[in-house]
Amino acid sequence: MTGIGDDSAVLAIPEGHQALVTTDFSLEGVHFRREWHPPDSVGHRCLARGFSDIAAMGGTPITAFLSLALPQNLPQKWVDGFMRGLFTLAEKFGVSLAGGDTAESPAGVLADIIVLGSVPKGKAVLRSGARPGDRIYVTGALGGSAAIVKLLLDEKRRRRIRPRDFPQHFYPIPRLEVGRFLRENNLASAMIDISDGLSTDLAHICEENGVGAEILEQLIPKALIGRPAPKVDLRLAMHGGEDYELLFTAAQRKRIPSRIAGIAITEIGEIKRTKNIMMINQHGMQSELRPEGWEHFNIR
Amino acid sequence: MTGIGDDSAVLAIPEGHQALVTTDFSLEGVHFRREWHPPDSVGHRCLARGFSDIAAMGGTPITAFLSLALPQNLPQKWVDGFMRGLFTLAEKFGVSLAGGDTAESPAGVLADIIVLGSVPKGKAVLRSGARPGDRIYVTGALGGSAAIVKLLLDEKRRRRIRPRDFPQHFYPIPRLEVGRFLRENNLASAMIDISDGLSTDLAHICEENGVGAEILEQLIPKALIGRPAPKVDLRLAMHGGEDYELLFTAAQRKRIPSRIAGIAITEIGEIKRTKNIMMINQHGMQSELRPEGWEHFNIR
Repeated sequence: MTGIGDDSAVLAIPEGHQALVTTDFSLEGVHFRREWHPPDSVGHRCLARGFSDIAAMGGTPITAFLSLALPQNLPQKWVDGFMRGLFTLAEKFGVSLAGGDTAESPAGVLADIIVLGSVPKGKAVLRSGARPGDRIYVTGALGGSAAIVKLLLDEKRRRRIRPRDFPQHFYPIPRLEVGRFLRENNLASAMIDISDGLSTDLAHICEENGVGAEILEQLIPKALIGRPAPKVDLRLAMHGGEDYELLFTAAQRKRIPSRIAGIAITEIGEIKRTKNIMMINQHGMQSELRPEGWEHFNIR
Repeated sequence: MTGIGDDSAVLAIPEGHQALVTTDFSLEGVHFRREWHPPDSVGHRCLARGFSDIAAMGGTPITAFLSLALPQNLPQKWVDGFMRGLFTLAEKFGVSLAGGDTAESPAGVLADIIVLGSVPKGKAVLRSGARPGDRIYVTGALGGSAAIVKLLLDEKRRRRIRPRDFPQHFYPIPRLEVGRFLRENNLASAMIDISDGLSTDLAHICEENGVGAEILEQLIPKALIGRPAPKVDLRLAMHGGEDYELLFTAAQRKRIPSRIAGIAITEIGEIKRTKNIMMINQHGMQSELRPEGWEHFNIR
């Protein structure tokens, strides 16, 4: 069921708009660990995944639905923390929770977030639309979330981690304003959110358009994490997932601001006709960038 | 993610319509058992739950999304069967699957079905709207699904059960045409689907409206199951869940057909001003009908 007090939620999509729908699982042991993630971080990240998908379409979230299955022995305090994290992020973007489903879980906390958004008719920014010669951009900096998972995997260092000091992993902010700005100003030819890592998500864009890309290694913006804040390894910036930044392409003639809504926008390369993705290092050496995928707790 | 090849699905809601959204978990060990339910039955029932919620609003399903988490060792054949069951029901109602999410499951098959539907603006049939004096109706017959769960719980009898002979439990048909007919002809004052059992779902309607009800015991349509087809016990018809029939109320002056889209419609009682729900048996004896809830594999 969905809809607080009805079988379905009843919602208005603004006149002249299309609906956007996205759904994302957050499963204990797969996407988060209760020993690692405070409950409000789990709630926050659960909704951030959905918002990030709406951001990547240039859309505006209208409302969210939560299907939540809980193990019988879960303390109510955990659930309260989870809901607080989710609601705090929802409020930040003026979104309400319109319903969902609840069940007893056979194993661990199981959440599925559904976000309903809207976009003016025909204006959604798709993954298709990138053309050879288009420039490739990313928002923010990459590899921060994966670098923090790497710290979490180290038992000794984990104990010293305060989640609030590592927002890239525990409280990522989806780039809704950036996505909307790009769509409103008709700047992006294609867009995707970087949830599986730059190498994988860029490969998705290239496959979708039957093109390749050339990336300049030294242009990739590497995240700074913790205090003092060292830059993350290039490997993590290239392959690490769950940064929830945006990757987009734009025709060469478009002027892309260097910051949008306070977020740095970095040009990292160019779409090419030949179908492979090449990395060029500072010495001009080329190597092929292969998508490595992203398994949440399996940092290589 | 959602949207085959994009971060979100982009969908048109017909002009002058509102969107309906519903989400329902189907979790192994909670809502189904792999030893009991063939994979196509699990897929069918998963989508039927969502369709039934849309039916209860008088809506039309547009598209469905599936979040599906699978254990690593699950045979591909099981997944194929699941998808076949889901697609067969989807096609029956002209609905496409627009995307979803996939993940590895930490334990068992975990599915969350999201159905997006539509209804002309302001015309959704809500749970609120029932008034004292309104007649209470149900579609089809009740208790069939619970009676079959009771058979499944009996190890010896379970082995002889052929799922196709017991469609009420394994392949229930959501009452979409009935719901739409009632809405188009402005017949129902309130509606809900009977997923938790008559006693519980009628209590939801009564609570929502601050009213009570009087039910005539001998009018409750009891399901016939198997061959030869004995009628199910009154207890199961009153309290058994997952029949996915509709319960609705209508003003006394409305003429309700005895069949809609081939489905029997039965008047079983009346909405009352006093807040309890009374059952009256064939001897005119009254007793209070208390909602018993419905736990999927816990038949009392």
